[in-house]
Amino acid sequence: MTLFDPPGEVPISGVAVDAPGGPPLARVRMTVAYDGTDFHGFAANAGVVTVGGTLTEAIERVLGRPIELACAGRTDAGVHAWGQVVSFDAPSAGLDLAELARAVTKLCGGPIVVRAAELAEPDFHARFSARSRRYRYTVLNTPAPDPFTRRVTWHVETPLDLERMRLGCDPIIGSHDFSSFCRAPKVGPGQPPASLVRRVIDARWDDLGDGVLRFEVEANAFCHQMVRSLVGTLVDLGLGRHRPGELAAMLRAGDRHAAGQVAPPRGLCLWQVRY
Amino acid sequence: MTLFDPPGEVPISGVAVDAPGGPPLARVRMTVAYDGTDFHGFAANAGVVTVGGTLTEAIERVLGRPIELACAGRTDAGVHAWGQVVSFDAPSAGLDLAELARAVTKLCGGPIVVRAAELAEPDFHARFSARSRRYRYTVLNTPAPDPFTRRVTWHVETPLDLERMRLGCDPIIGSHDFSSFCRAPKVGPGQPPASLVRRVIDARWDDLGDGVLRFEVEANAFCHQMVRSLVGTLVDLGLGRHRPGELAAMLRAGDRHAAGQVAPPRGLCLWQVRY
Repeated sequence: MTLFDPPGEVPISGVAVDAPGGPPLARVRMTVAYDGTDFHGFAANAGVVTVGGTLTEAIERVLGRPIELACAGRTDAGVHAWGQVVSFDAPSAGLDLAELARAVTKLCGGPIVVRAAELAEPDFHARFSARSRRYRYTVLNTPAPDPFTRRVTWHVETPLDLERMRLGCDPIIGSHDFSSFCRAPKVGPGQPPASLVRRVIDARWDDLGDGVLRFEVEANAFCHQMVRSLVGTLVDLGLGRHRPGELAAMLRAGDRHAAGQVAPPRGLCLWQVRY
Repeated sequence: MTLFDPPGEVPISGVAVDAPGGPPLARVRMTVAYDGTDFHGFAANAGVVTVGGTLTEAIERVLGRPIELACAGRTDAGVHAWGQVVSFDAPSAGLDLAELARAVTKLCGGPIVVRAAELAEPDFHARFSARSRRYRYTVLNTPAPDPFTRRVTWHVETPLDLERMRLGCDPIIGSHDFSSFCRAPKVGPGQPPASLVRRVIDARWDDLGDGVLRFEVEANAFCHQMVRSLVGTLVDLGLGRHRPGELAAMLRAGDRHAAGQVAPPRGLCLWQVRY
């Protein structure tokens, strides 16, 4: 797959099937929160510590057998989650999901917490069954930084014009080709280029007081670095570097260089996945 | 000094005096916040990274001369501060306090932030001029831990009886010998034992919702590990390990072994110092 969070499709290979001679299997759905600061993103990669790798290892240790872990959104290095969803198969005999959640949380040792674990339909797939993903991005717009929120916020010292940032949200809503706001996906030789059309359902800024500004965005799916590109460009609007009307033109340009800066990963959090 | 946060007294040596031949000096007062997770406490110590050592180094680098740093409360390893106060002398010619605060914050690189810097009276001393210190201790009382607050809260899984913990606060208020709730100070041969009498002005639990329970305590001064001993014992009350009435007897016992557990440092924060 070359896409980051592809739109939902359920591949036939995703259905839980008891292996011949193996124990009967149940599909498990887990909701997972993590502080991504010290991880090299979600996707398991040899030689680096990732959220997915750590989680897979912990689940396998508790179950005593290998699993294949699917996730709703492959968050980048330094990005957090409150409502990441993962799915995998586990032997159904004697399966205690509350105990599994507890044991996995304990093995992960702090930064990764299993908030819920439940049985799912055999064809449930954390990634392909998802209807939409909702992300939050938090900006701290104060003169001095805050040592207690620095891992989960982007500190912007210069006062931002929130009204301009709100106006900039309007053209984002709807179905668009987000090529200007995505890192181009790698395409193998002879492969057709992947579509970067995504349907944005909601995009808004909330002023939480004390300089905390929060961007919420929900879409059927996201391309790579899409939320961070949008936030960086919206903050550029708030700093007066572009006019709000220019965002629609940036979208139409279909060119990565048309957009503004990319916001740092630490302010981003995968908030909720809908199925 | 053998005391942790001794009651206020202004020693004559604490007054800013221009050194012969040196530049005229001004006494500076700074309010400092820090995430203490990765520090070996406040007090500068050879071979380990401390808040006081890091701060002193940064201030000296900006001023281009050595300083002697005083602080209101020498927090332990892993303990945080929102309103720590420090004082030191700086050459008064061309002193730009806003710029000094900014530069020191930047050199400290994230976990330590100078929230305010101002000129103080020449005899102001962050430690000896303080009239009272206020600490906050935060407990997260939920079934699952939270990856985002784990550096600044003590996660207690078993449901706590908040009413019992509130009743336990009553006997703490007032002037008492806190020997039962302190790590005994080291006393040199021939020295008289240090008084562990402290005057507690306020002690209360607030229920902030979502399982967040916050203890606030203010006293003229605190002995070593006093807040953590009180919190640990109050949580023991909330767990049903002691009856609320027993706390008064523990205080009277004057014996470290009479009290309950010592709460972990990560939930503790030096909130405010009054002068």
